[in-house]
Order: sequence, then structure tokens, then C-alpha cells
Amino acid sequence: MEVVFTFDVKDYQKRDLQTKFPQVMFHFNKKPQDAEVETATVIVTYGGDIDAALLERTAVLEWLMIASAGVEKMPLAEIAERGIRMTNVRGIHKVPMAESVLAHILALRRSLPLIYERQQVKEWNRKVGSTELRGSTALILGPGAIGSEIGRLLQAFGVRTIGCNRSGKKCESMDEVIIFDDLLDRLGEADYVISVLPSTPETKEMLLEEHFKAMKETVVFMNFGRGDLVKESVLLNALKNDEIGHAVLDVFETEPLPQENEFWTLPNCTVSPHVSSLSGKYVERALVIFESNLERWLQGVKALENIVDGGKGY
Amino acid sequence: MEVVFTFDVKDYQKRDLQTKFPQVMFHFNKKPQDAEVETATVIVTYGGDIDAALLERTAVLEWLMIASAGVEKMPLAEIAERGIRMTNVRGIHKVPMAESVLAHILALRRSLPLIYERQQVKEWNRKVGSTELRGSTALILGPGAIGSEIGRLLQAFGVRTIGCNRSGKKCESMDEVIIFDDLLDRLGEADYVISVLPSTPETKEMLLEEHFKAMKETVVFMNFGRGDLVKESVLLNALKNDEIGHAVLDVFETEPLPQENEFWTLPNCTVSPHVSSLSGKYVERALVIFESNLERWLQGVKALENIVDGGKGY
Repeated sequence: MEVVFTFDVKDYQKRDLQTKFPQVMFHFNKKPQDAEVETATVIVTYGGDIDAALLERTAVLEWLMIASAGVEKMPLAEIAERGIRMTNVRGIHKVPMAESVLAHILALRRSLPLIYERQQVKEWNRKVGSTELRGSTALILGPGAIGSEIGRLLQAFGVRTIGCNRSGKKCESMDEVIIFDDLLDRLGEADYVISVLPSTPETKEMLLEEHFKAMKETVVFMNFGRGDLVKESVLLNALKNDEIGHAVLDVFETEPLPQENEFWTLPNCTVSPHVSSLSGKYVERALVIFESNLERWLQGVKALENIVDGGKGY
Repeated sequence: MEVVFTFDVKDYQKRDLQTKFPQVMFHFNKKPQDAEVETATVIVTYGGDIDAALLERTAVLEWLMIASAGVEKMPLAEIAERGIRMTNVRGIHKVPMAESVLAHILALRRSLPLIYERQQVKEWNRKVGSTELRGSTALILGPGAIGSEIGRLLQAFGVRTIGCNRSGKKCESMDEVIIFDDLLDRLGEADYVISVLPSTPETKEMLLEEHFKAMKETVVFMNFGRGDLVKESVLLNALKNDEIGHAVLDVFETEPLPQENEFWTLPNCTVSPHVSSLSGKYVERALVIFESNLERWLQGVKALENIVDGGKGY
């Protein structure tokens, strides 16, 4: 059986895999056009290199292991048609993403951008306008594994957390959970509106002009989910008209964010180049999940962990 | 009875004080040279404007309310000689200071300085080298009210906390407490060395060259206590020789930090202009402590809260 990685891993990780699974032939760092793809039973990929043309060239592909969370850009219909199973690395983003969210919030509250700027010009100025996180309210769109971890940390800082999902079902580390339909009515309570929603037909352009008008003028809006949650023109207007206080964006309609995009230069917008989930421990954790699934696979167990439902999109 | 504030407060706060204490004559925003000082029974000050000359001019001064934490620059001998009581606002710094410490740590781990810099030149570059806070170890010098609050937040992020004090006595939110004498032996375990120690004869130049040599090369050293904890030349050398990874300094031997000081320009040093304890809620909280003490005072209760022992220096 052959397993093709479309990215590279460290040498010790290769040795580890080969030692643990001597019956498997591993190929690392292969391009979609490489011949090894044609005989692969398993492809391990970040997802962006899988398209219908590649699937055409595979002969015995049974399992796509996606080392990321979102699958909305994958050829889901073709994958389903061919009966190819998909798994992802759900859960491994929660630590780095929650740390990123807290880093950005705390940096803004404790005036770090200003402190950094003034250091560059050697300006000692104690007027920084710092405030506190404690005592504020956060509304988390998508309180799943990542959202709950964000909520847990926010609660440690004395922040009230409101989760918002489709069902209104209780979630960990949320003081309260509301349904999507009640969002507009409750947005005005939040000092932070944080989205970690995946891209699905339901979440696409879910936030409209009226939502930003309903937010506090001082709110920090954070999109760490997917760029199509809100039309960029809508968000740009809200920022330019000071309808909201600040935006921290890790995801965009078009990535890389084009040079001419106004987000780059707005003083009340932080552009993060889709890095909130990155971590020195990322591949290590992805391999733990993969190895556990590969073991099941080789034993003939069909119930893999982190199965992705192509229909739902997550 | 007259109470002189040497700083200003908001109008509603003035009205509040006058309503609650009609028998007291309040003077706000007075300079040390103003005549009101001469007839003040109580002076409320940030501390920096109190010197021996001012004390000479007071006739009935009985109580100095210091709206800050450190008193090492006050004329302690003269204050003691005149039997003037001192109180401070111990405890009100813990929320903003702990939030500042976490902000700086998370910003470094999640690459915020780099993200901000690249936004200025519109550079979309996902190579940011982010790592995680989770799983690391912090050594906190001075695990009192502030240090424990820092420890509590670090623990929420999955950080092991080692407190270090004189007695080795257990402290809240510390997985372990060690004594000053064991510091050198244990420094090598820490990914973060965070000082919130006050300035006392014992803590002055407590950290020497050998301490920085004993730290991890990747350590983040944070001084949020007092600038005389370590000679600047020692710390500068450690940074320039990459003996440590990064320093975040909120306090300095000389403040404001002189233009020619090298800390300003070292790439592995963050200069914070003594702002870690500042917060929009600072004066509000200081007044709560002051009002509670003033009430006791007017009732003849001599056991005020937050009495400062001029001999110990805290």
C-alpha cells in the first residue's frame, strides 16, 4: 500500500512513520503531477492541491487525509462520487487559534501596537489609553472546539461569553448560547464579536450591513473563520464609517490579500495573513491524528476519526 | 479637615467625594507649591511630587495616600519621623498588569510584531514562525497579588508556574514555590522569567550576569517590577550576546528611558514606557480604596487598609 504526502515533513518524522508502518510505502513532498499519485491508496495533503483532474489520475485512491480544517475548496462532489473517504485534523487548531485570538485582543487593550510604533521613534510617552479585558462581553460565532477554547480563555480573564450557533444547544465555556436568528438582537451587547465559523451555504455572507450597524461603535470584530462570512465591501464601509472600533482579520475573500485592498491601510484594521492556526507543533499534531487513523485503517477498521462530511462541508 | 489631591479626577468623581464626605474640604489638582498643602490633613498623590521640602511646608499632615504601588523614591525617613501614616493602592494593579504580561507573551508567541510590520508594507507572508504558550514553564519573581494573578492566567494557558520568593511559602496559582537562594539552579527550566518584585535592598541588583547565563537562550525575560532589579549593562550584554531570546521591559534604571539608551533599538527588546499597570479603571479603583479608608479615618479607626511599612519599602 502506498501513501503519498503532498508536503514535506521532518526527517525524524519520516523515519518514525516508516518504523511504525513497515508494510506501507511512503512518498513525501510529491507534486500533484508526480507519478506516485496514480498508485496512492492514501493522499495526505493540506487540501489546496486536490482537484478533479488529480482525482482522474488516481487509480486506487480510497482516503484523503486533509491536514487542515476547511474543505470548501475541495472537489466535494467528485470525492463523494468516487466513494473516497475524507478525514481532517479537526481539533488541532484550537490551541494556536485561541492563543492568537487572545493575543490580538490583549494587544489592542494593552496598547501594544502603539507601544511598538513609539519604540521605533524612541518616544517615551505614557499616554497609551490602555483599558482592560476584564468585565467585557464576547460573542463567539461558532462555539465548537475552537470557539469553546477561546471561550474558556476569555472566561479566565473575566469575560462574559455568548456563543451563537444554529441550534442554540449548550456549549462548553459559554455563559449563554443563542441561535443565529437572534444574532441581530444581541450583537449590541458585545465588546468582541469573534467568528470561527466554517464556510458553508448557511454562513456565507451571513453578516450584513445591518449587523455592523447593530454592533457597539467600540466593538472589536474578529474574523478567524472564513473570508466569505461578510462581503468585504460591507466590512470596509463599517470600518471607514467608524461603525465599529477595530477589525482583526485572519481570512479574506481573496488570499493572498491583493495589494490594492484597502484593509491593508485602514488604521482600525489588523491584517493577519491567515496564520492564526499555525504553530511549530502543527505537523507533529497532524501526524498523531494520521497515525492513529492509519493504524485503524490497516486493521480494517472503517470508523476513522475526524471523518469529514462533504455534504455539510465540515 | 482638608484633603489635597495633587492630581485631577473626573467631575463626577469630585461630586461623589463631596456628597459622601460633606464634612471634608477637598482640593483637587494642586501643585506641591500651592498654599492648600500647608493646611492639608491628608494628601492624595501618585508619590513623585512628595519630597522633604514639601513635608516642611505641611502643618497638620497626618496621612499620605499614595495612588501607586512603589514608595522607594519617597522621603521615607522624614515621613516616619513626622509620624505620617502612608497607605497605597496595593492590589489595584493586578488586573491590568497581568493582562499586560499575557499580552506581551502571547504577542511574541503568535508573531504580532512581525504581522504588524508586514502590514505596513502590505506584505502577505505566511512564514511567521509562530509557536505556542501551552506546555511552557514560567518562573515568577515575586508571586504576591500581581504575580499570582499572572500565574492564574498562565495556568489557564497550560503553563507550569514556579514562584520565587524569600520564604518559599506557598502562593496561589503557583505549581511550585522556590526560595531566592535556589533561583540560579532553577532558572534554566523557564521559558519565561517574569519579575514583579518591588525595589528593596534585597531585590536591588538581585539578577547578575550569572543569572542570565543560566537562562535558556530562548527565554523571554520580563521586568515589570522595578528597574534596579538588574544593572542595565548586564541585561544589555545578555541581549546583545543572544544569551537570552527577548526582553520586555516596563521599568528602567532611569525613566523616561534616555534617547541614547540601547534598549530602544535592540531587535530582541521591547520597550514599554512604564504603562503595564495603567488602565481606564485605575483612578476609579484607587478612589474606592481611598473612600473606604477615609470613612474609617473619620470614624476614628486607626487601622487603615493598605498601610505601607516605610521600613520594608512595601
